[in-house]
Amino acid sequence: MVDPKTVLQHLDELRALTADEQGAQRLAWSPIWLKARAWFEDRLKDLPVEHHYDAAGNHWITLSGKSEKSLVIGSHLDSVPNGGWLDGCLGVLAGLEVLTSLAREHNGKPPCTVRLVDWADEEGARFGRSLFGSSAFAGSHTIDADRVRTDRDGKTLEDALRNCGIDVERIGEAASEQENIAAYLELHIEQGPILEKLGKPLGVVQGTKGVERWAITFHGQEAHSGSTPMEARRDALAAAAKLALEIRPIARKHPQSVATMGSVKTFPGIVTAVVGQCEATLDMRDLDANVLAGMLREAREASEHFAQEERCSVEWSKIWSIEPIPFHPALIKLCEEAIIETAGTSEQLPSGPLHDAAEVARVGIPTVMMFVQSLNGLSHNRAEDTKREHIEQAVIALNRLAEKTIRWIRQQ
Amino acid sequence: MVDPKTVLQHLDELRALTADEQGAQRLAWSPIWLKARAWFEDRLKDLPVEHHYDAAGNHWITLSGKSEKSLVIGSHLDSVPNGGWLDGCLGVLAGLEVLTSLAREHNGKPPCTVRLVDWADEEGARFGRSLFGSSAFAGSHTIDADRVRTDRDGKTLEDALRNCGIDVERIGEAASEQENIAAYLELHIEQGPILEKLGKPLGVVQGTKGVERWAITFHGQEAHSGSTPMEARRDALAAAAKLALEIRPIARKHPQSVATMGSVKTFPGIVTAVVGQCEATLDMRDLDANVLAGMLREAREASEHFAQEERCSVEWSKIWSIEPIPFHPALIKLCEEAIIETAGTSEQLPSGPLHDAAEVARVGIPTVMMFVQSLNGLSHNRAEDTKREHIEQAVIALNRLAEKTIRWIRQQ
Repeated sequence: MVDPKTVLQHLDELRALTADEQGAQRLAWSPIWLKARAWFEDRLKDLPVEHHYDAAGNHWITLSGKSEKSLVIGSHLDSVPNGGWLDGCLGVLAGLEVLTSLAREHNGKPPCTVRLVDWADEEGARFGRSLFGSSAFAGSHTIDADRVRTDRDGKTLEDALRNCGIDVERIGEAASEQENIAAYLELHIEQGPILEKLGKPLGVVQGTKGVERWAITFHGQEAHSGSTPMEARRDALAAAAKLALEIRPIARKHPQSVATMGSVKTFPGIVTAVVGQCEATLDMRDLDANVLAGMLREAREASEHFAQEERCSVEWSKIWSIEPIPFHPALIKLCEEAIIETAGTSEQLPSGPLHDAAEVARVGIPTVMMFVQSLNGLSHNRAEDTKREHIEQAVIALNRLAEKTIRWIRQQ
Repeated sequence: MVDPKTVLQHLDELRALTADEQGAQRLAWSPIWLKARAWFEDRLKDLPVEHHYDAAGNHWITLSGKSEKSLVIGSHLDSVPNGGWLDGCLGVLAGLEVLTSLAREHNGKPPCTVRLVDWADEEGARFGRSLFGSSAFAGSHTIDADRVRTDRDGKTLEDALRNCGIDVERIGEAASEQENIAAYLELHIEQGPILEKLGKPLGVVQGTKGVERWAITFHGQEAHSGSTPMEARRDALAAAAKLALEIRPIARKHPQSVATMGSVKTFPGIVTAVVGQCEATLDMRDLDANVLAGMLREAREASEHFAQEERCSVEWSKIWSIEPIPFHPALIKLCEEAIIETAGTSEQLPSGPLHDAAEVARVGIPTVMMFVQSLNGLSHNRAEDTKREHIEQAVIALNRLAEKTIRWIRQQ
């Protein structure tokens, strides 16, 4: 039997070791992250497992089974700066408990191989490159674009990785870990308010939403705030403000769409000048690729209309995008069964945030994620929290899902 | 007779000496500003004048007349970084030509004393304290608030002034220069589009608009852009965007009012987070104190309404304010006469930008300003320009105004 209290105890230990008053500080490639990983290695000592780090820094723990076909359970130990106590590490520590339980239940030799992976740098908080390790594993990582990335102190990604024993030229070799993987499972906190609002502890994730991420710049005319009559202005901020408000009705046409203007910068950005240039960012997400494309088109047309109204011009420049990634129908069904057997009720919802699971699903590995309720929808800060009884239910449900998935793998 | 071509020649010389490809670089208290002042001192060599720097760094040039009552003509040689070729220095160099002409016409002894002043640090571009020298002269400068000011390199105002021979503790002594001043005249470029639009080269300034300058902070809730449904958000940017648009109809109710949101800052300000905090600035101006107070009240009420709509809170913090300062009715009349005699047509308009003249008028010295047309309303950058024939008309009109004001002083 799985012991959910061990997971809570491990979570508390890890927090004591790697968080300060501002929250978790397990920034990838940092000394505190390495300390977290060393602590985690210590937890493996009494298990009948092999473990190693791949070429991208992902940590693989393997419990060999009767078949080489393998079930992988994964998540990440790294956190954002001032992060929460659950984001990422819950999935790794719950996975460790499930692996431990499976080893015990099957006398060290389960019907198929079971592996646990701690992905490297899921957050991308230091260099702005999320899903670093899992995208190297998936072969979707193109290091060329990342070679120039630097952190706040001007240190390059390449240098930071070299200090951790990673050669950026060779991270693609992590793809060899794909061999024999038959299914991938990931437990994560929801990081949103939906399950809490519905009063449900756990939910099945249908897939990760597609994301369109753009930089939008309005060009007007810088002018003196005192001497320029209102009717003579070409105010770039006014055009951006109209767009900031218009993306909301565009997103609200679809029940699961979101659209966010997260950053606005004004130039010259002084109290005494009409804004001559305004740079904004737009992040739009939906699980349906057609809905997402339609939202993007509407936002773009609105921006051009507002630019014209304000006698400005507007430019769009793509930051990043990813298509929606649906999870595997059979695993979604198994996950729902496991949740209902544990909590009596379940919910299907898409994931707005990206996760390593999306990279795994992209290469065709059957994948599903389970969400556990977040309190107040908060994440990426020290206020992030989940009821301890819900964490216990999540561990039990993940264990049930693992057992069901092992049976499913054997039937394939 | 005044020679306007000399003024154009001086303007060209000063530009060649103190501007680069990006524009004028006569930042107050900098080596280039000191070079401009040294060049200006050279221009005084053959004149029958005394000159000295006061305790705040203002440069006073005095042509003694038959009476101690004095007419002062003033402006400033300092510029913003990457500034234009006319802002400030036009008034000083036109004043020099008028002083030279008056000395010649009256055989070195005009009916009353005539003084020229080059105010120190009108722009406040380096330390954020505009009208430095003229407010010290007026006694409205409280050095306590400025002691902590630093420039981009962290140098304090106090240190920068010490390098120029100014002791910040003693700048209030500049007030002694007020003695015997009977009238103050200032010629400046309009820095706005009104005279150009009306096709008039010159205008009389009725006074400087009052200014209300505030920092407004909306507090919402930072949230994940992917996991937070639209209806669960408390988006501080949305509240600020509504206010950015609402200040425009508030200002447009009054023909000469302006309202500007010049700076918007978003926190955390990243593409993947709903804005939890948004800091904006508001600058409102009008010549009528009641109109200005009404606008401020309306903007404040609107901000509270928008904060409530977006489930945010809002805080207002005053940056700075100044009451409207009307100029002297008799001098406004003389200025209008001088302009009509020169250009055949005139216009009365308020000044949106502040000028040293406002500080002089505040202490009760009869004051008026003359504006010369700006092209495209541009200022504070290298594109700032005025037709050369309009500059010549401005010098002739300023000379006429000086002669009229001397006669007016004698009648007092």
